[in-house]
Amino acid sequence: MKDMSQEKKVYFFGGGEGEGNTNMGNLLGGKGSNLHEMTNLGINVPPGFTITTDVCTYYTQNGEYPDNLEEEVDEHMGRLEEQMGKEFGDSEDPLLVSIRSGARVSMPGMMDTVLNLGLNDETVEGLAKQTNNRRFAYDCYRRFVQMYGGVVVGLENADFEELIEAKKEKYDAVNDTELGVEALKELVEEFKDHVEAEAGIDFPEEPREQLWDSITAVFESWSNQRAINYREINDIPHHWGTAVNVQTMVYGNMGADCGTGVAFTRDPSTGEKKYYGEYLKNAQGEDVVAGIRTPKDISELENDMPEVYEQLTAIFEKLEQHYKDVQDVEFTIQDGELFMLQTRTGKRTAKAAIKIAVDMYDEGLIDKNTAVKRVAPKKLDELLHKRIDPDIEVDVLAAGLGASPGAATGKIIFESDEAAEVGDEEKVLLVRTETSPEDIHGMDAAQGILTSRGGMTSHAAVVARGMGKPCVAGCEDIDVDYDKEQISVDGKVLKKGEYITIDGSKGEVYEGQVPTVDPEMDENFERLMRWADDIRTMGVRTNADTPEDAAQALEYGAEGIGLTRTEHMFFGEDRLPIVQDMILAEETDERQEALDKLRPMQKEDFKGIFEVMDGLPVTIRLLDPPLHEFLPDRDELLIELTELKVTGGDEEKIAEKEQLLEDIERLDEMNPMLGNRGCRLGINFPEIYEMQVTAIFEAACEAAAEGVDVKPEVMIPLVCDVRELEILKEVAQEAAEKAIDESDVDINYADYAIGTMIELPRAALTADKIAEEAEFFSFGTNDLTQTTYGFSRDDAEGKFLAKYLDEEILPKNPFEVLDQEGVGQLVETGVQKGRSTNPDLKVGICGEHGGEPASVNFCYQADLDYVSCSPFRVPIARLAAAQAELGGKKKKGY
Amino acid sequence: MKDMSQEKKVYFFGGGEGEGNTNMGNLLGGKGSNLHEMTNLGINVPPGFTITTDVCTYYTQNGEYPDNLEEEVDEHMGRLEEQMGKEFGDSEDPLLVSIRSGARVSMPGMMDTVLNLGLNDETVEGLAKQTNNRRFAYDCYRRFVQMYGGVVVGLENADFEELIEAKKEKYDAVNDTELGVEALKELVEEFKDHVEAEAGIDFPEEPREQLWDSITAVFESWSNQRAINYREINDIPHHWGTAVNVQTMVYGNMGADCGTGVAFTRDPSTGEKKYYGEYLKNAQGEDVVAGIRTPKDISELENDMPEVYEQLTAIFEKLEQHYKDVQDVEFTIQDGELFMLQTRTGKRTAKAAIKIAVDMYDEGLIDKNTAVKRVAPKKLDELLHKRIDPDIEVDVLAAGLGASPGAATGKIIFESDEAAEVGDEEKVLLVRTETSPEDIHGMDAAQGILTSRGGMTSHAAVVARGMGKPCVAGCEDIDVDYDKEQISVDGKVLKKGEYITIDGSKGEVYEGQVPTVDPEMDENFERLMRWADDIRTMGVRTNADTPEDAAQALEYGAEGIGLTRTEHMFFGEDRLPIVQDMILAEETDERQEALDKLRPMQKEDFKGIFEVMDGLPVTIRLLDPPLHEFLPDRDELLIELTELKVTGGDEEKIAEKEQLLEDIERLDEMNPMLGNRGCRLGINFPEIYEMQVTAIFEAACEAAAEGVDVKPEVMIPLVCDVRELEILKEVAQEAAEKAIDESDVDINYADYAIGTMIELPRAALTADKIAEEAEFFSFGTNDLTQTTYGFSRDDAEGKFLAKYLDEEILPKNPFEVLDQEGVGQLVETGVQKGRSTNPDLKVGICGEHGGEPASVNFCYQADLDYVSCSPFRVPIARLAAAQAELGGKKKKGY
Repeated sequence: MKDMSQEKKVYFFGGGEGEGNTNMGNLLGGKGSNLHEMTNLGINVPPGFTITTDVCTYYTQNGEYPDNLEEEVDEHMGRLEEQMGKEFGDSEDPLLVSIRSGARVSMPGMMDTVLNLGLNDETVEGLAKQTNNRRFAYDCYRRFVQMYGGVVVGLENADFEELIEAKKEKYDAVNDTELGVEALKELVEEFKDHVEAEAGIDFPEEPREQLWDSITAVFESWSNQRAINYREINDIPHHWGTAVNVQTMVYGNMGADCGTGVAFTRDPSTGEKKYYGEYLKNAQGEDVVAGIRTPKDISELENDMPEVYEQLTAIFEKLEQHYKDVQDVEFTIQDGELFMLQTRTGKRTAKAAIKIAVDMYDEGLIDKNTAVKRVAPKKLDELLHKRIDPDIEVDVLAAGLGASPGAATGKIIFESDEAAEVGDEEKVLLVRTETSPEDIHGMDAAQGILTSRGGMTSHAAVVARGMGKPCVAGCEDIDVDYDKEQISVDGKVLKKGEYITIDGSKGEVYEGQVPTVDPEMDENFERLMRWADDIRTMGVRTNADTPEDAAQALEYGAEGIGLTRTEHMFFGEDRLPIVQDMILAEETDERQEALDKLRPMQKEDFKGIFEVMDGLPVTIRLLDPPLHEFLPDRDELLIELTELKVTGGDEEKIAEKEQLLEDIERLDEMNPMLGNRGCRLGINFPEIYEMQVTAIFEAACEAAAEGVDVKPEVMIPLVCDVRELEILKEVAQEAAEKAIDESDVDINYADYAIGTMIELPRAALTADKIAEEAEFFSFGTNDLTQTTYGFSRDDAEGKFLAKYLDEEILPKNPFEVLDQEGVGQLVETGVQKGRSTNPDLKVGICGEHGGEPASVNFCYQADLDYVSCSPFRVPIARLAAAQAELGGKKKKGY
Repeated sequence: MKDMSQEKKVYFFGGGEGEGNTNMGNLLGGKGSNLHEMTNLGINVPPGFTITTDVCTYYTQNGEYPDNLEEEVDEHMGRLEEQMGKEFGDSEDPLLVSIRSGARVSMPGMMDTVLNLGLNDETVEGLAKQTNNRRFAYDCYRRFVQMYGGVVVGLENADFEELIEAKKEKYDAVNDTELGVEALKELVEEFKDHVEAEAGIDFPEEPREQLWDSITAVFESWSNQRAINYREINDIPHHWGTAVNVQTMVYGNMGADCGTGVAFTRDPSTGEKKYYGEYLKNAQGEDVVAGIRTPKDISELENDMPEVYEQLTAIFEKLEQHYKDVQDVEFTIQDGELFMLQTRTGKRTAKAAIKIAVDMYDEGLIDKNTAVKRVAPKKLDELLHKRIDPDIEVDVLAAGLGASPGAATGKIIFESDEAAEVGDEEKVLLVRTETSPEDIHGMDAAQGILTSRGGMTSHAAVVARGMGKPCVAGCEDIDVDYDKEQISVDGKVLKKGEYITIDGSKGEVYEGQVPTVDPEMDENFERLMRWADDIRTMGVRTNADTPEDAAQALEYGAEGIGLTRTEHMFFGEDRLPIVQDMILAEETDERQEALDKLRPMQKEDFKGIFEVMDGLPVTIRLLDPPLHEFLPDRDELLIELTELKVTGGDEEKIAEKEQLLEDIERLDEMNPMLGNRGCRLGINFPEIYEMQVTAIFEAACEAAAEGVDVKPEVMIPLVCDVRELEILKEVAQEAAEKAIDESDVDINYADYAIGTMIELPRAALTADKIAEEAEFFSFGTNDLTQTTYGFSRDDAEGKFLAKYLDEEILPKNPFEVLDQEGVGQLVETGVQKGRSTNPDLKVGICGEHGGEPASVNFCYQADLDYVSCSPFRVPIARLAAAQAELGGKKKKGY
């Protein structure tokens, strides 16, 4: 047991001085430290004191208070009495206090508060006398007993409300406010009886007893299940504890020159520099929250109480100048006197965050670094996509996973071919149970994608994010019926051609066409992003498979391509049959024939990308997926074949289908993710990689001949041993040099590079050897996460990952946020070992984590040269990289 | 360039003294160092000298010889001339020498030899005069020119043989020996012409030129492709280099009191203490090898040349006493004088190795440690299984992979049900394209298993090894036709019921019943294994799923069970329907009902094992495989359903099948290996694990009540994060304690343990956290290898691993021999991190590597407490563990 007897456990604020300040948030909590700070700033704050978070931690661990805490609290109650000229429990002019929790970070609604503490059957009369308002006094008393019952004893608030309802009936009152002194007196008694009956205790008339009961209740509320859950979700350590603030009560509901309000020093929605907030005359804080009366706009206070308004806005300015940020304040006006009850940093929308940061820089309040730190990168998502008009109220038809952000409206279409056909003329939304690589063209033509199965890393989700297209995945509420061409949700049926709208950020589906608002990337956004670029040292590239995606990413500030997946190109209608010929070829020369047809097509693909990325590096990954992905669906074929056989179909046709089935089965794999894919294909069929590399360098030479500055980088996937890379590097080098030699132009050999992905644990563990053969590494953290966890992306989310996340077995989805503890170790090992043998090694990441802020920060710490992400996440990565830079030193050992 | 001028580069032997000795193998090679040693032992060795391996390395790196090598060689040639009283190139009595390679370890046939060097048109006459045998002299000359042409110039031997054939025709000779002096003289000229025409050089008449050409040729043969490949396969470093031995020629073909032979000091086949070998009178070494004349047994030498025989056997005794091991020697008798040309350690069968080791201990030649080191653990496999009678010549019908060692004969049966039915009465061999868990009972009933698909880790291979049953897998030569109930190989058809024989060690298939010999575990074997047990500190357990397997393993010396797979028990005919009910249950209570039926069955299984393993630990792994493995085959169902639909089958039946298909599809996974299996099942369905643990402890208590000493260890599979273990440990603990509390007996809580498998990279990487919750770790290196490499066992071998091994992209199959470089890093990390937070952690391995000697040695180095392997590999593991112990210190840091 820690000895806290020599430690200061209680801090006083009042009389223009606070013993604490805003930097003592760890000890005094956020609310408390700012009450001290405001007091020190000469702002009128009701005096009080703060019991430290250390006391909470001590109490939580030991179940009792530290020695001499009681004395310290008593001493400070004495100071408070002296300050206020009132006595606690005095029947003439009693001191009344509030007891409020206040942790380091705000945990809204998670912990408890007790107001009007100090009232009993005697002091209530003193309060009545002092305020000259018996009804007010008894109303305060009624509220106190109710709060005590709820917070200290743990009774249901509904029970008390029931008693109030009964009382209103008895007195024929419609509103609480119509209850008179008698009624309130009766209620106080009934409340006490309820407390005593339920809890088996006497309601404490002694204020000091009330005080200690309430302090203890607040400390204990730190450990209630709700608060524990909240902390776990928000990564708040349990050992932080909460402080308790004991503060003199002030009342905004004592008459016409009273009031209460909340305000922001700037508009938290738009960021505009104007006061924003609302207030109620003659009301307590809870009345504003309860929504019984409609509050007025803060600007009306200027008319209602011009002096108070002037004081308040002066405080706003003072606070902004002092805190250098937007403040969110609570205030109360008692008898014309303004009291500040809270100030804290104001939450804001992404748009507001950017405007406020830029404005404050222009106002000279903050520097550029601070401005860049002020915007949470993740929130940029709001700005980069269409959104449902926030002013519209919508009914949610069904909810799934927000798999790719943005809003989209369109007619329901089930077949990708059909979507591709009509998608140019009208807006369609592709709705499927799940998508496969054969749906790419349909997804491309649709405004958005909705699937009833699959998780955040299902095919639909991954491809949609890559395309920057809204997607709701795994929407299990919806029953998709391809035969009837309809979807149904809880009995409601929507036919093909009817409109629906999806919100891919929230994962919601709405009926009909819901109005949307466009992305908002204004001048403020551009300025802030430029500052971020000036600050950061880590590069940001994009994952892009087409010239269109590349152009989009360039617009968003990408500095090159970190991953072009060549397989997406293989699914084109004109190509798939050739690809299938290539795959099913039994002899090398048959295969070569198909490859010869594919090469000019691939060349055109690559050329388009080189042209867009003029002067920037373009990393192209050679064929990666298992070949059977390109073949017809096995189940369908099996059914067809069985049907043909049973109905005595054409012998020749049966034989043909049987052959195809046999071919497919030959390529079929139990675990394709761990099967014949990646560089294993290159080892088995060097001619495929040779064709691709030839196409890359033919394209590069043609583009170079037209004046484009090309920087091709050939990336070999799924290497587990340096030998694979050695062999395929030779294949690639030969093909590249042959293509260059045969062309008319000289492209500089020094401008192209051959490297590898590090996406298997063994590659990271043997990176020292691999780096001897590689010019660059790119961490494929999607695959690396799969193998490190032994989780298949395709299966995990549908089968067990949801449960793992719900039950917090894993804190985050490791496919979204890089698992630093496990996968991160391998990334660090890979970087360190790789650089140990090849100090010039360029290292990047091209998994989806490359656009996730916490992961970007990790990549910076691990000393990566760049991150690469889908085009729509490029700004997020830019900002996150700048913030990582500002976050300080890299880890030791790099 | 290293300066070697001060280094001694040439070592002389002769005149009873060698400048080197047997411990200088690294510098002088194996052959050379033993020639020096024998000379020092006073054994008659033709004098000569050795050029060191350092010279080879220098030459390989620099393409030229070190300074003053020439002088050193000249000087030693001088010593040799003096010793022999002959001169090199002397036309009266020329010194003739052989040039032989000799690396540190024997690389048979990989490098080159030149004999009779020093002959030319003049010296040949001198040799003729000295030997009084012109034919002999010209035959030597002919042979020299032929060898020079082959070794130095690189010509095909066939060209020379053609010229000989032509000559025989011309002279009407049948054998080479019938060619006279004239014919040989003509041949010498024709050979020289051939050399000069092909190589464009004059054949060197100058002996010194011949000498240097030949030395260089031998050094260069170190770097020929054949030798490089051999070294890579056998893990011989390229920088070792070869020595060159220049040695005076002696001749065994100069008359009746000449001869040549090879011998072992003991029988290398049986180990019997008797001389073993053969010799030919009037012959050269190559005549013995060529097999033209049938050599005589060495014992006949006693009659033929009693004095020589006496000398020879005295040398045998001297060599054995000196080397303390069986020697394999070459000797030549020239004019009645015995010369020893080579001695080296004799290779031997496993049976001989054991007998020799034990005998030599009894003879006082070696101590127990040395005896234990003398037997290669891997070779024990020969003794532990039935073998094809080695005296029988067999025709191979087809060849596949030697997937599980041993020989088996039986009638061809295709269906497992049928095999199970008739397997008791007659010997059957199960033949399938591949096996699945549904074939277990058929495999169990069969003598052996033959599959036409799948690799060393296919289901058939893994299960067969577990059962200790011979298996040939992936025998693609064989076409299995279930419909016609026959197999065909190259047009040959064998019907069901016909006999075949397989050799699961070699991977061969034979027609008919081939005689076999039984395992040979005699008293010598038992003694040696007891010595091994006394030496080793690392434990050896077994992987066993049934009481029968456990009993077998006990007999082989297992000290406990390291892995009992509970799922094998689920496939029993009486259980599978209940297991399926459990899986397809939609509600927890339905599932519980099925589990309640399974529990008593599982209890009986476990009880049987506890009884067998009385007093030893039994580690039981909770359910691991994906649930769909227990469901009917999806394809078959799909075909059935389609047929029903097309033929207008019964509606109800269709609906039922559709429901089943839907259920199966719900559980179906893209990558089951990375899907919902292992502890993920336990998290999703805690009731399954609860049932299993309850059954384990009910069994333990019942057995304990009957006086059995039970030590149950519950193992939770596929953990990737400590949270999983925390949760499931609680489930297990509760179930265990409940079962114990409800029983009549007290089993000691301290005697049971709960631990986990470490079989995912993340588990190894976060082992420090996991160890806080685990009492033991067991490395599941099969799965760990899969995820570290990203190789699916099910797919890799069929699709690409064979190519990887053929082309030496990977040196070894990582599923057979633990990959120390990659997977091994994770094992080391896991052990170190695990012990860092839990010093009492017990650590073992239960992957198949646990019975592979190199992997066992690694496990010892990594400080594992035990290895666990299939029963038939237990003796191998025991011996390997003892040898690891004798191999010396553990790695630093453990």
